[in-house]
Amino acid sequence: MPRKIVIIGAHAAGVDASSAARKTDRTAEITLITKEKYTGYSRCGLPFVIGGHISKFKDLIVFPPSFYRMMKLQLKTETTATNINPTDKIVDTTDKAGNTETIHYDSLILTTGAYSFIPPINGRDKQGVYSLRTIEDGQQIDQAIRNGARSAVVIGAGLIGLETAVALKERGLNTTVVEMLPYVLPVMLDKEMANIVHEMLEQKGLKIIIGKGVDEILGTERATAVSVAGEQIPADIVVVATGVRANTGIATKTGIATGETKAIKTNSRMETNISSIYAAGDCAESINIVTQKPHCPQLGTVAVRHGKVAGINAAGGYAQFTGVLGSAVSQLFETQIGVTGLTEFFAKRGGIETVTGTITSKTRADYYPGAKPIKVKLVVEKESQRLIGGQIIGGEEATQRINALSFAIQKQMTVRELAKVDTAYAPPLCETWEPMVLAAEMVLMRLRKT
Amino acid sequence: MPRKIVIIGAHAAGVDASSAARKTDRTAEITLITKEKYTGYSRCGLPFVIGGHISKFKDLIVFPPSFYRMMKLQLKTETTATNINPTDKIVDTTDKAGNTETIHYDSLILTTGAYSFIPPINGRDKQGVYSLRTIEDGQQIDQAIRNGARSAVVIGAGLIGLETAVALKERGLNTTVVEMLPYVLPVMLDKEMANIVHEMLEQKGLKIIIGKGVDEILGTERATAVSVAGEQIPADIVVVATGVRANTGIATKTGIATGETKAIKTNSRMETNISSIYAAGDCAESINIVTQKPHCPQLGTVAVRHGKVAGINAAGGYAQFTGVLGSAVSQLFETQIGVTGLTEFFAKRGGIETVTGTITSKTRADYYPGAKPIKVKLVVEKESQRLIGGQIIGGEEATQRINALSFAIQKQMTVRELAKVDTAYAPPLCETWEPMVLAAEMVLMRLRKT
Repeated sequence: MPRKIVIIGAHAAGVDASSAARKTDRTAEITLITKEKYTGYSRCGLPFVIGGHISKFKDLIVFPPSFYRMMKLQLKTETTATNINPTDKIVDTTDKAGNTETIHYDSLILTTGAYSFIPPINGRDKQGVYSLRTIEDGQQIDQAIRNGARSAVVIGAGLIGLETAVALKERGLNTTVVEMLPYVLPVMLDKEMANIVHEMLEQKGLKIIIGKGVDEILGTERATAVSVAGEQIPADIVVVATGVRANTGIATKTGIATGETKAIKTNSRMETNISSIYAAGDCAESINIVTQKPHCPQLGTVAVRHGKVAGINAAGGYAQFTGVLGSAVSQLFETQIGVTGLTEFFAKRGGIETVTGTITSKTRADYYPGAKPIKVKLVVEKESQRLIGGQIIGGEEATQRINALSFAIQKQMTVRELAKVDTAYAPPLCETWEPMVLAAEMVLMRLRKT
Repeated sequence: MPRKIVIIGAHAAGVDASSAARKTDRTAEITLITKEKYTGYSRCGLPFVIGGHISKFKDLIVFPPSFYRMMKLQLKTETTATNINPTDKIVDTTDKAGNTETIHYDSLILTTGAYSFIPPINGRDKQGVYSLRTIEDGQQIDQAIRNGARSAVVIGAGLIGLETAVALKERGLNTTVVEMLPYVLPVMLDKEMANIVHEMLEQKGLKIIIGKGVDEILGTERATAVSVAGEQIPADIVVVATGVRANTGIATKTGIATGETKAIKTNSRMETNISSIYAAGDCAESINIVTQKPHCPQLGTVAVRHGKVAGINAAGGYAQFTGVLGSAVSQLFETQIGVTGLTEFFAKRGGIETVTGTITSKTRADYYPGAKPIKVKLVVEKESQRLIGGQIIGGEEATQRINALSFAIQKQMTVRELAKVDTAYAPPLCETWEPMVLAAEMVLMRLRKT
């Protein structure tokens, strides 16, 4: 009898799990169950549709119906998994018409994702208040702009918040970002690096308020303004981007353990504490490669890597997940921003003694037109002199510099090794002395003085 | 008495050596001696001035006279070091007026560079035959174009040859490249990768002849054509770019040993076999990090790294050079090309059993405009499953991908580790599954089959 694999969820983690499972077991019966109407699309692309860089929301659907046919996957959309019975290995489902079905599984993969966390702000139920997690969210924001919205407030200056604020500004709205923490991108960057992004965003015309919370969303039925520390900021649109939380409802109900990040606990094969049940993606916890502690960065790259490992194992193969560094990049207007590993702030909070080095350089030979300034900050664990984190703002090729630093962290490169690394160079593409190497030199100088 | 440091040569290696020496010993007397009129300029930038991307040759001078003043360096231009006496620790020099001087040294650094090797082709002494190593070479070629040259032949399809050919084409000349070896960029790329570059260059209008040598440069006083296997190719300009050879004349005369690459042998502190004499840059041999054998890639990045180590040691500090991988990148028209470590060809020639993997992917999310195709080839040592080489053609961020692979090789990353690596992602900047990771997957698939 063919192996029955059931996957709850059908986005990055779920679809990659189904694909890996199919490649591992050609005859398995693989079923994906999702509440959503649209599946297998890129949530990360949503702000860029709003900003007008991508023409329509449906372009974000990376896996069209033909994919499921080709891979012989059963896809049940607008269907809710209501109950899991791990003893009998069954999942109960209800579709949008109310029809129920009981599906047997040999392996079950939970890729239930995460939901936008909306803090208990007065007025959050008013019309015109959105989050940005689904195509439907995006379509509603887009429609509000088409209907004549002139102003927007984004609550939260994390990646999604800032990407959305940039998009709203690009559409011509007077846009304000309100962040309760003392600087923007507080999970990604250290304060002095974040301040550079802050300034750049203000120069581009965004209003940024930090260190203050939103007291209330004002308006009668519809949001018209947001009240922040006594100030009223006009807001035809309010986007709440204060982070996401793992969807663990059905897991908890089934007795599946969650960890200290409140996401589902997994081992290195993405197995939960219940036999034959795996978890992957935004709903699942990982181990941070540097701290060796639970970490749940909820990134697309982690979701697909999780999904692949869960899919292979669920289909009878063998694969291990090796942990996360939280490597992430973004582009805000023309500025690239990236991070990998620990920031100085989070390293210190984790009790790690650090030495850091920051330099400003440029991305091409001095004489070559088009060079852009680039700022690199390295975080080094003092005792071992190993690189444990990197932040980059500006320039070109930030993504692959972040990847290079990520490789270095994963292979326990010391800052001394990084300062001597063999790099490539050509006048139109980069500088003779690579900025990452110069930043390593800066760390070495400070290490000598300590 | 202050330490006397003499440096013969004043380009990448020499200038970086002087700068590192100054930072190590604030009171040393540091003298740079060079035959050339212009010092401290970027040879790598020459083709881009010819191509019109940089407005004038003097823009390439990275270290202006103010640098030498600020760093308190004595600079003797158009001065030849005629003799070294290592027993008395003196260098004899002659300037362009014929004045001689004897300079004492405590430490001597040879950064004598390399010269363009011109093979014994009939007619090579004709007017209109150039190499491209110095500003003067570049000015002559530029002048020939201004004087109405309509056609060009570049002999040699290495990096300099192709960069020069692209520049000549950009200036409107009918340009042909003749390469004796069976494919372009034979030191950088494997054949099947080189063929992609070959096709791209032809599509851009260059004529490329491979596997054939130049029989003769035709013309009376001036070159007018080049004869290749019976065919006459019009050539108002002939650029010979058949590689460079280390300048070792004065070293050999002094009893300084050269190695199997014909460049000066050095230890990890860049010391030659003669006490207190160091060598750095294109004239000096290194150890290849993968093969642990002598290697002389003659690249600007190696020169500055050499120079820094030599300068620190010559000034009484302590620094080690950790070897080379030959990481190199270029941009030909819009196509980025990069390499690090060993190609499959050179690995095999060195007796290394390899497994390779090549993929074609793209540089951004499918739905994001502006994605470019990218081809990645990885070379893995079969027994250890360690990455030993990488080649990239096309796309964006090729340089930093090469750096990431270089980091991986230097830290002995296995292909299995590379396939699981934590990478960064954002729709405008890259794909969820990084092409380097997909190429690693390809290697793993082939490893399973072997």
